[in-house]
Amino acid sequence: MQRTLGTCYYPEHWPEDIWQGDAARMVAAGLTWVRIGEFSWSRIEPTRGDLQWDWLDRAIDTLVAAGLKVVLGTPTATPPRWMVDRHPDMFALDADGKSRGFGSRRHYCFSHQGYRAEARRIVTLMAERYGPGERIAAWQTDNEYGCHETTISYSDAARVAFVRWLEERYDGDICALNSAWGNVFWSMEYDRFNQIGLPNLTVTEPNPAHMQAFRRFSSDQVVSFNRDQVEILRAHSDAPIAHNYMGRVTDFDHYKVGEDLEIASWDSYPLGFLEDRVGASAADQRRYARQGDPDFQAFHHDLYRAVGRGRWWVMEQQPGPVNWAPYNPAPLPGMVRFWTWEAFAHGAEAVCYFRWRQAPFAQEQLHAGLLRPDSAETPAISEARQVAEELANAGEVAPSQAPVALIFDYDAEWAWQVQPHGQGLSYFDLVLDHYRALRRAGLSVDIIPPTRSDFTGYELILAPGLMHLPDDLRKALAEAAGLRLYGPRTAARDEDFKIPTAPLPPALQGLDVVIAAVESLRPDMPLPLANGDGAVVGYLETLEGEADVLIETSTGHAVAVAAGNQVYCAGWLDPAGLDRLVTTLCARAGVTIRKMPEGVRMRQTATEEFWFNHLAEPVETEVGTLPPAGVLRRARQEV
Amino acid sequence: MQRTLGTCYYPEHWPEDIWQGDAARMVAAGLTWVRIGEFSWSRIEPTRGDLQWDWLDRAIDTLVAAGLKVVLGTPTATPPRWMVDRHPDMFALDADGKSRGFGSRRHYCFSHQGYRAEARRIVTLMAERYGPGERIAAWQTDNEYGCHETTISYSDAARVAFVRWLEERYDGDICALNSAWGNVFWSMEYDRFNQIGLPNLTVTEPNPAHMQAFRRFSSDQVVSFNRDQVEILRAHSDAPIAHNYMGRVTDFDHYKVGEDLEIASWDSYPLGFLEDRVGASAADQRRYARQGDPDFQAFHHDLYRAVGRGRWWVMEQQPGPVNWAPYNPAPLPGMVRFWTWEAFAHGAEAVCYFRWRQAPFAQEQLHAGLLRPDSAETPAISEARQVAEELANAGEVAPSQAPVALIFDYDAEWAWQVQPHGQGLSYFDLVLDHYRALRRAGLSVDIIPPTRSDFTGYELILAPGLMHLPDDLRKALAEAAGLRLYGPRTAARDEDFKIPTAPLPPALQGLDVVIAAVESLRPDMPLPLANGDGAVVGYLETLEGEADVLIETSTGHAVAVAAGNQVYCAGWLDPAGLDRLVTTLCARAGVTIRKMPEGVRMRQTATEEFWFNHLAEPVETEVGTLPPAGVLRRARQEV
Amino acid sequence: MQRTLGTCYYPEHWPEDIWQGDAARMVAAGLTWVRIGEFSWSRIEPTRGDLQWDWLDRAIDTLVAAGLKVVLGTPTATPPRWMVDRHPDMFALDADGKSRGFGSRRHYCFSHQGYRAEARRIVTLMAERYGPGERIAAWQTDNEYGCHETTISYSDAARVAFVRWLEERYDGDICALNSAWGNVFWSMEYDRFNQIGLPNLTVTEPNPAHMQAFRRFSSDQVVSFNRDQVEILRAHSDAPIAHNYMGRVTDFDHYKVGEDLEIASWDSYPLGFLEDRVGASAADQRRYARQGDPDFQAFHHDLYRAVGRGRWWVMEQQPGPVNWAPYNPAPLPGMVRFWTWEAFAHGAEAVCYFRWRQAPFAQEQLHAGLLRPDSAETPAISEARQVAEELANAGEVAPSQAPVALIFDYDAEWAWQVQPHGQGLSYFDLVLDHYRALRRAGLSVDIIPPTRSDFTGYELILAPGLMHLPDDLRKALAEAAGLRLYGPRTAARDEDFKIPTAPLPPALQGLDVVIAAVESLRPDMPLPLANGDGAVVGYLETLEGEADVLIETSTGHAVAVAAGNQVYCAGWLDPAGLDRLVTTLCARAGVTIRKMPEGVRMRQTATEEFWFNHLAEPVETEVGTLPPAGVLRRARQEV
Ligand SMILES: [Zn+2]
Ligand SMILES: [Zn+2]
Ligand SMILES: [Zn+2]
Repeated sequence: MQRTLGTCYYPEHWPEDIWQGDAARMVAAGLTWVRIGEFSWSRIEPTRGDLQWDWLDRAIDTLVAAGLKVVLGTPTATPPRWMVDRHPDMFALDADGKSRGFGSRRHYCFSHQGYRAEARRIVTLMAERYGPGERIAAWQTDNEYGCHETTISYSDAARVAFVRWLEERYDGDICALNSAWGNVFWSMEYDRFNQIGLPNLTVTEPNPAHMQAFRRFSSDQVVSFNRDQVEILRAHSDAPIAHNYMGRVTDFDHYKVGEDLEIASWDSYPLGFLEDRVGASAADQRRYARQGDPDFQAFHHDLYRAVGRGRWWVMEQQPGPVNWAPYNPAPLPGMVRFWTWEAFAHGAEAVCYFRWRQAPFAQEQLHAGLLRPDSAETPAISEARQVAEELANAGEVAPSQAPVALIFDYDAEWAWQVQPHGQGLSYFDLVLDHYRALRRAGLSVDIIPPTRSDFTGYELILAPGLMHLPDDLRKALAEAAGLRLYGPRTAARDEDFKIPTAPLPPALQGLDVVIAAVESLRPDMPLPLANGDGAVVGYLETLEGEADVLIETSTGHAVAVAAGNQVYCAGWLDPAGLDRLVTTLCARAGVTIRKMPEGVRMRQTATEEFWFNHLAEPVETEVGTLPPAGVLRRARQEV
Repeated sequence: MQRTLGTCYYPEHWPEDIWQGDAARMVAAGLTWVRIGEFSWSRIEPTRGDLQWDWLDRAIDTLVAAGLKVVLGTPTATPPRWMVDRHPDMFALDADGKSRGFGSRRHYCFSHQGYRAEARRIVTLMAERYGPGERIAAWQTDNEYGCHETTISYSDAARVAFVRWLEERYDGDICALNSAWGNVFWSMEYDRFNQIGLPNLTVTEPNPAHMQAFRRFSSDQVVSFNRDQVEILRAHSDAPIAHNYMGRVTDFDHYKVGEDLEIASWDSYPLGFLEDRVGASAADQRRYARQGDPDFQAFHHDLYRAVGRGRWWVMEQQPGPVNWAPYNPAPLPGMVRFWTWEAFAHGAEAVCYFRWRQAPFAQEQLHAGLLRPDSAETPAISEARQVAEELANAGEVAPSQAPVALIFDYDAEWAWQVQPHGQGLSYFDLVLDHYRALRRAGLSVDIIPPTRSDFTGYELILAPGLMHLPDDLRKALAEAAGLRLYGPRTAARDEDFKIPTAPLPPALQGLDVVIAAVESLRPDMPLPLANGDGAVVGYLETLEGEADVLIETSTGHAVAVAAGNQVYCAGWLDPAGLDRLVTTLCARAGVTIRKMPEGVRMRQTATEEFWFNHLAEPVETEVGTLPPAGVLRRARQEV
Repeated sequence: MQRTLGTCYYPEHWPEDIWQGDAARMVAAGLTWVRIGEFSWSRIEPTRGDLQWDWLDRAIDTLVAAGLKVVLGTPTATPPRWMVDRHPDMFALDADGKSRGFGSRRHYCFSHQGYRAEARRIVTLMAERYGPGERIAAWQTDNEYGCHETTISYSDAARVAFVRWLEERYDGDICALNSAWGNVFWSMEYDRFNQIGLPNLTVTEPNPAHMQAFRRFSSDQVVSFNRDQVEILRAHSDAPIAHNYMGRVTDFDHYKVGEDLEIASWDSYPLGFLEDRVGASAADQRRYARQGDPDFQAFHHDLYRAVGRGRWWVMEQQPGPVNWAPYNPAPLPGMVRFWTWEAFAHGAEAVCYFRWRQAPFAQEQLHAGLLRPDSAETPAISEARQVAEELANAGEVAPSQAPVALIFDYDAEWAWQVQPHGQGLSYFDLVLDHYRALRRAGLSVDIIPPTRSDFTGYELILAPGLMHLPDDLRKALAEAAGLRLYGPRTAARDEDFKIPTAPLPPALQGLDVVIAAVESLRPDMPLPLANGDGAVVGYLETLEGEADVLIETSTGHAVAVAAGNQVYCAGWLDPAGLDRLVTTLCARAGVTIRKMPEGVRMRQTATEEFWFNHLAEPVETEVGTLPPAGVLRRARQEV
């Protein structure tokens, strides 16, 4: 695989007479890909049925003629204003029951059948026109599903679809649902499926089984919305199909959407994310303000490698300050190149910069591009050009497997949100905390979906926080050769969100441990571990059973227990505690650790080894001094 | 009176074949009482009119046969789903006008006449079936009135009822209402009663007279809802009737509801409350995380002794971690016994643990019980068993009067909420702060309703913050023999929320003091007291008059003034200031103080004396070293 | 001009038999003016068409007979309850779409045509009755436009009016609007004007051009509402017309409203404002809790001198604790006099105290007056009396021009709100920060509207943050003789909220500087300036061009650049940085600085010089020791 670069371009935003010059400059900068079209519905179809393809034909021809490969987006994320006249109730409703209207983007409910039909119609028209032939090198469906909290809708369309979804799940047997959810608890039993409402606006919290079912349903609606488009595109085109996922948008199952695609891609805005979603401390937000979090992007790179089953891109790469975060600093010089190489280190096929030229109008007028609004260059384009030159000499690369597997499961993410037990306890954060500790130990990681059935080749497999453990995964893990880490909350709920009682969780074969009790703790009440650094924070289970205690608190409460190559961790560990746990696991699994200096991360592929300094100061490492924003690429070294 | 234990049981949650075993284990653990039924409407009446009493008959028979006494709850807190089809508008509306729907509990508006009729219907059916005979030892009406902020509803049903309530209060004379409320102020005068709306969604704050009237009306709706049930039950049964109030739910007048009951009871969750409603500092939330606040439960014990006119229970006692607080730690070993004895120290007849067995489904699946979901024992049941054994040797006890009276008035609580003047100033907190100071001084306290007409036997009577002082109470206090403490804000408003002007407040006979001005202060601006510790924080009045100054600020502003056995305090004192005030009052009243070490509290009854160590460390006291969670019970000692 | 005092009086709140005594006491206290009537609609017209003028006639006669001058307010801020029966949809809707109902004040939408007609009707009736003759000395329209966030309404009436407003602005050409707003961006293009909604409830942020247009429209609705009244009053009366603006209410253009009035006035509540809108640090909120912010009132005094084109009053002056702030402390003794003289130092014609007597009922019953509710005097009336005596010997004064001009532009305020780029970045705060620095340098300042065409006489002109620079102002500034300070964000947007691109902003003639990039920064990441104190905080532009660098960061990033007598500042400076900037500017402009001690401010008029000590402690100054709340007035001194 040859690694390539690209950009996101909006011909409809610019006078036609500059398209050719833009295309030539893209090629000159070393770019291969140009993504277009995903917000252009009002130009393709200004009024319903009035299709205006000419401008898009000319735009595509111009770009292709210049030597660029076109990624064409379906425009369904931004239905035009006339759509609202046809479907006044097409909007999602928020949890307060308020309709979210026209005037920005993503203004549709995934369950609205009228809009679903319109989406299929425009995708069909687009596929019929551009599918045949070679003009389009790849497709993108919609744009950033779920962004702006648009997965979950409390509309009547959603309610009707949810009822149907439940009817199917419970085979039309309302007693089965009542029993599975324990609706007897507060006389919440239903007589008929169509009595079931959405789990918002209740007096106190709804039944968690009800909430989790609604989360799963909401995710399935995204999957089926996307599948509609994929089926149409595939009927007309051989080009691969991608979607551009958004960072830390976890309201739908990205793996399930990804199963219908050839390529996963994501939109990487390291500085914006550090300000609005990473959850880093204020000190880290200052320290990494111009560089981004040292693990957040890498985590997503590894995640989308899994979502894309090996094929993945960065579809939108931050090139300078963005407009949408609470604070929008400029990147440190070199970071655009740094982020690009970091994506390649994790196996990206392509990195596309968003956007070609900063728009002087509308919502993102303060979002930097490779060009300024006056078409002058920004620092980002020089760094892109540098990467293009470096890539020219970098050769082809092949996929590789990491020594460590880390399972990430969207169903568990929802389950923890439905029932955190302690304020702020988040499954995403738990998995990210484990990922950080692995990276601090110099380990390369594969993120693994819960549907994986074969763990061959992994020396160490981490499965923290899987509140529901599907039978197949339980079996696959039981059969794995590597060391497995479970807990906390492993298998704490059955598929209907009940606590299994015969026996109590986690009920792992070969590991004699029972969760006898659970408690959540104020974050300012860490429980120190015995014999060294680290503490349990926020959450702790009380274990029973004969497994050996590996780690305990200073008061003798078992935290990590083991038998053979299975380990169960009963609490949420702070970073020092996780470092101890990872050290303990690696020693047991025979995995070599290479302790990274603060801010430094290393990633190995089959043939290459990359070192990254995320700090704004130089750092001494075993491979020499890394400057600020420093990237070192060399042949893979075995220790 | 023999002190007893019990538990809360939900036969409808469990297979019938384990009921008998459960009952036998309850008896073996030393339990006397079992409360059932309060959430079971959907099983009693699965569809309207289809009464299914058989299972409940068998459940009651099984429990009674095992030797338990049954408390039967009316199921009106959880109307089944079919009720909503009959009465789609039965829900409360929140202050934003949003309807609070089905799917949890307490989903009804107290003013909805349709639901009121349904509630009377089911209670009648239940009373007719179970009232006669001996099967039921006590009744509980509904469950936790007002919990989840359900007292106040902005529904149309509430508006209609409020208009009628006002019409009655003002004898149908709209001019009287306009004048009483000062509606001329912003041209808010009404022509007819039915023009009056609810005091939400106004542009800026509504008339405080309007708000206070609505608060009183809302409370009265709870009283009349409960009275409906009591009248029906009493017509069919001789068993005593209780309600289980919830901690720090002050939106309705518990005394008034209590007047219709034989027994007051409350639901005591010390760890959950410390996290979500006590209002303690973060340091105290850490210090007492596993023990609970040292005064909050005691305050409620004393309050419900007043509400029950001597007869009171803990109907639900926390037995382990709960599910609903921001953080849900496990109690320190011994705390379940400790809390039980604390209730008995304050005169409880019975303490029932909530719940018998942890439910593996629905909303409270993380709420501990005496048994785990797999029916194994939790630590709580051992501690309950220990108390049962201790009780067996503890003999009978009789009611007793404390030397100190502290008035707590729901009307004042609403008045301070309607018009705090300074952000965060809360009457409940003011009274609790005084209560804490009394307890730090080793004093046992009776909480007294504002309807009390006789203060005989009290050496010291505290009446802080009574914004409206009803004539009868004014008279009763004037005639009391003990020392009375008034202020701040005593009699600051008449019955219609006006400032009396002839003369200005407080207008206390025999105490020459006038509130010339009031101010509220930032909490970070304490005003130090002269000659020693303590400060005024948050609120201060400027006094005029000839009363003697007992305490003043360092700048000579009078804070506490006195004449004879009346004292007026013009400000909100910090803990050190309140300790000074209590010391001063006790010296003046001839009451002996016994200074408690931090975390230690003492309570005397007529015959017994109890010492409690709320700390997680041992504490030295005048009665020896108290271990963590330590309880010392001995014969009452006079100093 | 003779400086005078007054008060706000509500005869309808008091028994008629005390009116005469009240009037006599006002005169005795040295008051000249009495404002009445602005909330009395329900007494003037208890039911529609039933006009009750008699009481108002008698009230006016009583006051005039006592020697007072009457300011009569139109009562449109408080339409009576019967109005709502006629116009049930007359309310403003908040951004969530909730209607803001009856029960307080300002319960109308400026765009509701039905209410607009009613307002014209009552004003016509009032003007016809009281306009002719001499009884009324001045008028006030409505009360505190925009207070309680009432400028902006998301009602259907507002939507209809907004569509019409846009149609006019874009000459009925929807393509022109689409193009001006860049609606192609996310397929937001409209086919017809009446498809345009209000910019609330969108999925993510609306187009900033859409938002800014709505802000301008909303302001224009206030202007036209007020103009309706002014035209009617002027047709019947020769008395001057005022409106009483509210502090830091910036949702409409006060200058534009002011152009229709003879007198600007504002309502000055120094202690309330410090708590709820100044935005001072907690330390300053403590330090000035009883005195008020040292610059906030002065800023408004100077602002309303501009709004009134020289003629301005304080219509409501805080006389003691108010009721509405989060905390409501009492002023330091002397502050009522201090605030009064401060207003006169800035050129006020009159200062009226709000209110004569504290009301014992309704919403403001805890708002102090000159009299207590029992008619006893408060400290404020003594201080007013003292000012009256001092004024008697103070002679006439004439208007004067300050050496420094500071432009304040409402359009820029909205633009920064629409697009702050960094959280918390506020144009008002930016201008106030500059104003504070000028005052710390002992400079008297004129605030200038953006419509000013002649800057003759100003040695220094500050124009920070003018996001849109209208052509006329650009020209006027270019032609000014004094030194001009621009930036940050000068001319960053065109009149339709686009970034100009040929060339990029600021495009100032004679100053070679281009804003090449912008970034916003976390407030805890100050960028220190080189060679001395001060830092950039929160916002920084990257400049290109040949202008000389005056100030740069410690890393060499240009912050202030200059050519000739034009300076551009690229960042938001902290106080020390602004002191450096002002020092640099004054040195360059030849303006003499007199450094003020902390808390001390000086103001010069043509003939007088005033020194004010805002601290609660005495301060040493070059004019001697100023006591707490100290005011020194002397003949103007030239240095
Ligand atoms: Zn994007
Ligand atoms: Zn409960
Ligand atoms: Zn006012």
